[in-house]
Amino acid sequence: MILDDGGDLTHWVYKKYPSVFKKVRGIVEESVTGVHRLYQLSKAGKLCVPAMNVNDSVTKQKFDNLYCCRESILDGLKRTTDVMFGGKQVVVCGYGEVGKGCCTALKALGAIVCVTEIDPICALQACMDGFKVVKLNEVVRQVDMVITCTGNKNVVTREQLDRMKNGCIVCNMGHSNTEIDVASLRTPELTWERVRSQVDHVIWPDGKRVILLAEGRLLNLSCSTVPSFVLSITATTQALALIELYNAPDGRYRQDVYLLPKKMGNTALWGTIRFFE
Amino acid sequence: MILDDGGDLTHWVYKKYPSVFKKVRGIVEESVTGVHRLYQLSKAGKLCVPAMNVNDSVTKQKFDNLYCCRESILDGLKRTTDVMFGGKQVVVCGYGEVGKGCCTALKALGAIVCVTEIDPICALQACMDGFKVVKLNEVVRQVDMVITCTGNKNVVTREQLDRMKNGCIVCNMGHSNTEIDVASLRTPELTWERVRSQVDHVIWPDGKRVILLAEGRLLNLSCSTVPSFVLSITATTQALALIELYNAPDGRYRQDVYLLPKKMGNTALWGTIRFFE
Amino acid sequence: MILDDGGDLTHWVYKKYPSVFKKVRGIVEESVTGVHRLYQLSKAGKLCVPAMNVNDSVTKQKFDNLYCCRESILDGLKRTTDVMFGGKQVVVCGYGEVGKGCCTALKALGAIVCVTEIDPICALQACMDGFKVVKLNEVVRQVDMVITCTGNKNVVTREQLDRMKNGCIVCNMGHSNTEIDVASLRTPELTWERVRSQVDHVIWPDGKRVILLAEGRLLNLSCSTVPSFVLSITATTQALALIELYNAPDGRYRQDVYLLPKKMGNTALWGTIRFFE
Amino acid sequence: MILDDGGDLTHWVYKKYPSVFKKVRGIVEESVTGVHRLYQLSKAGKLCVPAMNVNDSVTKQKFDNLYCCRESILDGLKRTTDVMFGGKQVVVCGYGEVGKGCCTALKALGAIVCVTEIDPICALQACMDGFKVVKLNEVVRQVDMVITCTGNKNVVTREQLDRMKNGCIVCNMGHSNTEIDVASLRTPELTWERVRSQVDHVIWPDGKRVILLAEGRLLNLSCSTVPSFVLSITATTQALALIELYNAPDGRYRQDVYLLPKKMGNTALWGTIRFFE
Repeated sequence: MILDDGGDLTHWVYKKYPSVFKKVRGIVEESVTGVHRLYQLSKAGKLCVPAMNVNDSVTKQKFDNLYCCRESILDGLKRTTDVMFGGKQVVVCGYGEVGKGCCTALKALGAIVCVTEIDPICALQACMDGFKVVKLNEVVRQVDMVITCTGNKNVVTREQLDRMKNGCIVCNMGHSNTEIDVASLRTPELTWERVRSQVDHVIWPDGKRVILLAEGRLLNLSCSTVPSFVLSITATTQALALIELYNAPDGRYRQDVYLLPKKMGNTALWGTIRFFE
Repeated sequence: MILDDGGDLTHWVYKKYPSVFKKVRGIVEESVTGVHRLYQLSKAGKLCVPAMNVNDSVTKQKFDNLYCCRESILDGLKRTTDVMFGGKQVVVCGYGEVGKGCCTALKALGAIVCVTEIDPICALQACMDGFKVVKLNEVVRQVDMVITCTGNKNVVTREQLDRMKNGCIVCNMGHSNTEIDVASLRTPELTWERVRSQVDHVIWPDGKRVILLAEGRLLNLSCSTVPSFVLSITATTQALALIELYNAPDGRYRQDVYLLPKKMGNTALWGTIRFFE
Repeated sequence: MILDDGGDLTHWVYKKYPSVFKKVRGIVEESVTGVHRLYQLSKAGKLCVPAMNVNDSVTKQKFDNLYCCRESILDGLKRTTDVMFGGKQVVVCGYGEVGKGCCTALKALGAIVCVTEIDPICALQACMDGFKVVKLNEVVRQVDMVITCTGNKNVVTREQLDRMKNGCIVCNMGHSNTEIDVASLRTPELTWERVRSQVDHVIWPDGKRVILLAEGRLLNLSCSTVPSFVLSITATTQALALIELYNAPDGRYRQDVYLLPKKMGNTALWGTIRFFE
Repeated sequence: MILDDGGDLTHWVYKKYPSVFKKVRGIVEESVTGVHRLYQLSKAGKLCVPAMNVNDSVTKQKFDNLYCCRESILDGLKRTTDVMFGGKQVVVCGYGEVGKGCCTALKALGAIVCVTEIDPICALQACMDGFKVVKLNEVVRQVDMVITCTGNKNVVTREQLDRMKNGCIVCNMGHSNTEIDVASLRTPELTWERVRSQVDHVIWPDGKRVILLAEGRLLNLSCSTVPSFVLSITATTQALALIELYNAPDGRYRQDVYLLPKKMGNTALWGTIRFFE
């Protein structure tokens, strides 16, 4: 059996040891990327063993996004900048699970938070949760922090970076490193000053500084830590997936990618809940 | 066209004026019950016109459940009992959308809230939102209020009502009037005293009183009001559904029940959001 | 002994039965007004018996202001207007105990709240609690509700009422009925329409309506109720004050106004706390 | 003039250069300890210059306690233990400004928080803010974290440490390093294991580990950072105190310890508030 995170091991066995690969009883994969690669393999008709997508199970999704980000946004900002949250004006771009986590945490610590959102369901949720829905251009001049959580490209453009005020902190909690157009900041008229690991001051000719974290990469991965509690929940879910694939009677799983069956998912969930009793 | 809430008009036209019914261009229905009746008609092959299920659109669901209940739980309790929320111990049975709304509101006003839940995903959400997940039997003796939001039957049994403390408030925010086993309280040894409209004191032989609201029917409908804002959102959504059915080219809708198309749903959502600008 | 609320009984005995008044063992008074009258009497050298000021004890002050207003702002607004709080823009004038209570409750239910404040300590508290500190003039055009909690006069002027948007709700949670300049609205060009008890629509020539609650009197007293729990705490504190005056050895209390001794105050507090166990 | 933090400089000049000390125009002191020493000097009649106590000004007190601790409790715990807050059971000992800050932050991130308190006013505030008031002994077996903020000695005893569950985190946010009876843990049957800077595992003979942070010293000072924003507010307040002493006409300040005059305090406050606009 293969237990994988990212799909590299799966790919390596598949390429180098095709004969071994065929005899594998099952693959368990926990990352977005790895799962994506499995689905591609399956689509191409080249997946000759059953695989289990643990990435999309509730114990993985909710913790990776809503619950972890709610904590790591604070942790990541503190460790890099020592910023005080109380009274600060913040715009969070995107009100999906990650954005919801960031907004909840920052609001609770006394920040004044507004939200940009293009999906109307999420935008309405932001409204009803007490966050003003704005366009980034309307607020970019006055905010103390800009946090991206959209999964899209170029959410924060060079033009907007030009208009930010001195000392504005810019960071990314989304899915890629292109939400902030960092490339556009690598121009001769701007000076970069590395003030600390993961913290750059980008300095405009007039002396204005924008504080860029992790060069626009994921703040939660670059500047925070993942609680061992979360790792153990994911590991438990993976172990349950391995057990399921191992014990499954012939024919239950074919050469395809499966989600963890509900019963196993529930076992993982109740195990987690029991931890809090 | 028919614009209905509950399905009675639809049923009446269908039964009394079958020839008119066949010529109807479309039906728009906004209630759970009415939608249920439409699906039954459709299943039986007797629905000869296209119908639109507005009940399951986001502008209806979220407002009816999470957002309205977050406010109406407070309103319903205040109008009936004048209870002070600060410091009170409350158990909320069920952590779906309705339960989430109730818990959020009560916690924010200083109540100490715990939750019962049988679905592990909701139970984990309760944990991570800071609500202790318990069994009703563990806490029923000490709480000041019991609120049901499960959609199930007999969530609060006579045995549990027997064990509640003097002055405990019991009410239902769920989907039926059977969540609290009210029938079991209609026994000779218990005295019922109507102290106000929608408020009964049920009195045990030892003098203990349990305060039962709306005889176990829905508190939000019986003892609170629906904001005109919510009515206007629902009405807008219905109007959009009528427009859609009316303007639809032949063949887009057949003799079946449909959800509002995403584009129309988004129009309703953005209209609502614009209201908050 | 005299147990009074408002000072009328005290005044009546003092005026009509001066000989009885001299033999009174002690006076217990619970209202702001009554206490004010006692201090005046004392200042004038006319208070010939010891009096106890219960109004300024913690069990009275905190409940009357912070804790009651946190709940009655919601209750008062719901009962009069059925407004939905989620997403609404609100300005609260004054961030004392009453203002803090109003802001906490409204924010928790999803309103977007900003604050006006002239005292810098309270203004800083508002900032750090996540409320934008503004001038009323800056926001009066866009807000959905204006709530006064300052204790000052003419906090909301006619000019500001002229600039409010259609449907704006205006109400007073402060100490007098002059915080909103209601008198200025009684001019021929404005039409008053009583839509419900305690609710007036004031209509401008262009059709704009401002919704004025309780004609600018205290919303919490006019349109909400005081929980029996709060009344019983105050009553307990008064009873303790009576006991203290009755049992006090000669000489402990002279012809003056006293606060409840700390020991008695603590008894009242722990009694209240025990209620929550 | 002398600008001091802790009183060491003042003491040194006073002892070593008594003739210089007499010519000092004024002393500005910002720490609890330094202020305490100044008052002692004044009491002993040995303070021959005016001194200004900046420690007790609002801009210092509120930030040092409520606002800083609300953030540093999270920061200190994350940096040392990477604990996830969601769903954790926490007891906070003491509900003064520091305790209030800790409780607010932890509750907001999904922890289930209860409070121990011996002062009834604070205990009632805890109740009404939605925190169950308990005795430490009642909950010590089940909680995941114990945080002391009382200013008292031996709030957490060896007996209670013996009863904690495996993995319980114990730390101090109060005023001394004796709130947790750390000395009692230095006995032969317990093994200490330093797992990281500021983090010790204290291991019982049965293998149970208690995670002790900063050896019971102040977590906020040992394991977190003070935001530069807070330092700059304190520095501004000190500068204002220096200006006041320097410009004061003869006779305004004598050989005593003074609080910053209200006008200057307000200047500091409005300066801070303006920062948030």
